[in-house]
Amino acid sequence: MAPLPDEFELIRRYFAPLAAGVPGAVGLRDDAATLAVPADTELIVTTDAVVAGVHFLADDPADLVAKKALRVNLSDLAAKGGRPTVYFMTLALGPSIDEAWVAAYAGGLAEDQREYGVALAGGDTTATPGPLTIAIVALGEIARGRVLRRGGGRAGDDVYVSGTIGDAALGLAVAKGELGGLGAPSRAFLADRYRLPRPRTTLGPRLPGLAHAALDVSDGLMADLGHLAEASGVSAEIDVALVPLSTAAKTALAAEPARMAAVLTGGDDYEILFSAPSSASAALASLSREVGVPVTRIGRLSAGRGVSIRGAEGLALGRGGYRHF
Amino acid sequence: MAPLPDEFELIRRYFAPLAAGVPGAVGLRDDAATLAVPADTELIVTTDAVVAGVHFLADDPADLVAKKALRVNLSDLAAKGGRPTVYFMTLALGPSIDEAWVAAYAGGLAEDQREYGVALAGGDTTATPGPLTIAIVALGEIARGRVLRRGGGRAGDDVYVSGTIGDAALGLAVAKGELGGLGAPSRAFLADRYRLPRPRTTLGPRLPGLAHAALDVSDGLMADLGHLAEASGVSAEIDVALVPLSTAAKTALAAEPARMAAVLTGGDDYEILFSAPSSASAALASLSREVGVPVTRIGRLSAGRGVSIRGAEGLALGRGGYRHF
Repeated sequence: MAPLPDEFELIRRYFAPLAAGVPGAVGLRDDAATLAVPADTELIVTTDAVVAGVHFLADDPADLVAKKALRVNLSDLAAKGGRPTVYFMTLALGPSIDEAWVAAYAGGLAEDQREYGVALAGGDTTATPGPLTIAIVALGEIARGRVLRRGGGRAGDDVYVSGTIGDAALGLAVAKGELGGLGAPSRAFLADRYRLPRPRTTLGPRLPGLAHAALDVSDGLMADLGHLAEASGVSAEIDVALVPLSTAAKTALAAEPARMAAVLTGGDDYEILFSAPSSASAALASLSREVGVPVTRIGRLSAGRGVSIRGAEGLALGRGGYRHF
Repeated sequence: MAPLPDEFELIRRYFAPLAAGVPGAVGLRDDAATLAVPADTELIVTTDAVVAGVHFLADDPADLVAKKALRVNLSDLAAKGGRPTVYFMTLALGPSIDEAWVAAYAGGLAEDQREYGVALAGGDTTATPGPLTIAIVALGEIARGRVLRRGGGRAGDDVYVSGTIGDAALGLAVAKGELGGLGAPSRAFLADRYRLPRPRTTLGPRLPGLAHAALDVSDGLMADLGHLAEASGVSAEIDVALVPLSTAAKTALAAEPARMAAVLTGGDDYEILFSAPSSASAALASLSREVGVPVTRIGRLSAGRGVSIRGAEGLALGRGGYRHF
């Protein structure tokens, strides 16, 4: 394996081109970036770190690792109503990383920068004797005072979710060699949904003004619904029959109905879970059509505490939600 | 060793209190923070990651690790002319981290938040099978268009440095058990300067308008002078006799003169190296007195390329500057 070029050369070759569109990043040749924030907006910032062997497999393709690390951050901004602009990235490169890996990793970022209209504005690259560790801080803009919090939900709100739920949890099962009876196209679809989140960046920034509360489904539908309900000081009830499922997920569940527990509690969906008053339903339907992202009503918020699920009798849901330790 | 509480509890107990002064961080109970940026300023952002076993020793005291991780970022902002406001932190906690460690680490951050007037605005905490890894992104404010770049130096500028140079490099030698002939107070002073940077946050934000170019001395005086000269398209000449030294460093060098090479090329000084026109000299002297930080002229920029050092004959300076790989 060829040794890596030194960090300055690595930045010049692979990362500086990703900052070409950000004047205040001065080609990553300085110690800090400057960014203008328009007068009527405020800054919105989120951060997520991923570690090889914890959040992804050490031999996952480098471009997919890059995209997932970036997209989980874009998903957070979108769910809060923010429009992503730039990101900062620190990379701790383990001993198994060679230049070809870095090239493929940077290639994945370049593709996603075009896909989502964001650019790299700064970072730090260092060596580690441990696993590859990537920390991304994503910045965005949002009109002042319009951020969608977890805690904005009100009794009487409808509960909605974007896209489909459970594909990532079922995709993880596929990646582990389970769900063997499923056809190859369904297996490929689900595995891809697990490997590569689709942050709802066209939907999220349009939700302020319609939704009361929102977050992305990263810990699992039940756990994240619990976060929303708890922060809002209300209870939430959803109906399993209303939870939107992909065709592949429906096929998998027809064969193994007990997998519904994984659909409801598995993480990594990266859909937007939100609450909105019933007066917003027509506008939400129209917005959904306009941006081409399904939005499905799955339940309702009420006075009280806790989360309940109609139609989940007999499912082993556990306490739900992924925790790191 | 008691197991760590889960990540939510860890955040609630130790990190949420650090975000108490940032309304847009909503107690670290949401997925993103919002920040207002005053109309006449722009945002300035820097990021630095540190890894146990690479940037600090795994058994360094937790509060010092915290302070160093934060201060290297504050130093970058200060050297660019920025005033730090908030920071975001991702922590990858290795298997040897227990709750007492986290408590001491958060205590170190709390002290430095008071010292430097900054606050935590968000972050991410995860587990890693590898070494403790800390990535901090520090945000600040700077008047629009006033950032001090590496590349702003002009032929004829004087070259200045704040504080004293070489203490950290000599302190590292002390930490390794070298410089045994030095008295205990000098050894303690130098080791402390190595362990704990003093970012020049009172001086840096006052330099725009006086200085043309600036950066902090993290890679070593020679290497960072090279960065400034190269980015500015000029040559730099400094005089070894003018490089400001602490009393402890002078004592160490009197005993072992060859250590001057380490003073000139060692990293971790975290002083500000800057260039300014001769017309600024009186204002700089006055500013230095006002903020209580020594500022010393050590050389000059000229037309041409490269860095030269008067009085360094016979010193083995190598190529200078720390590189990670």
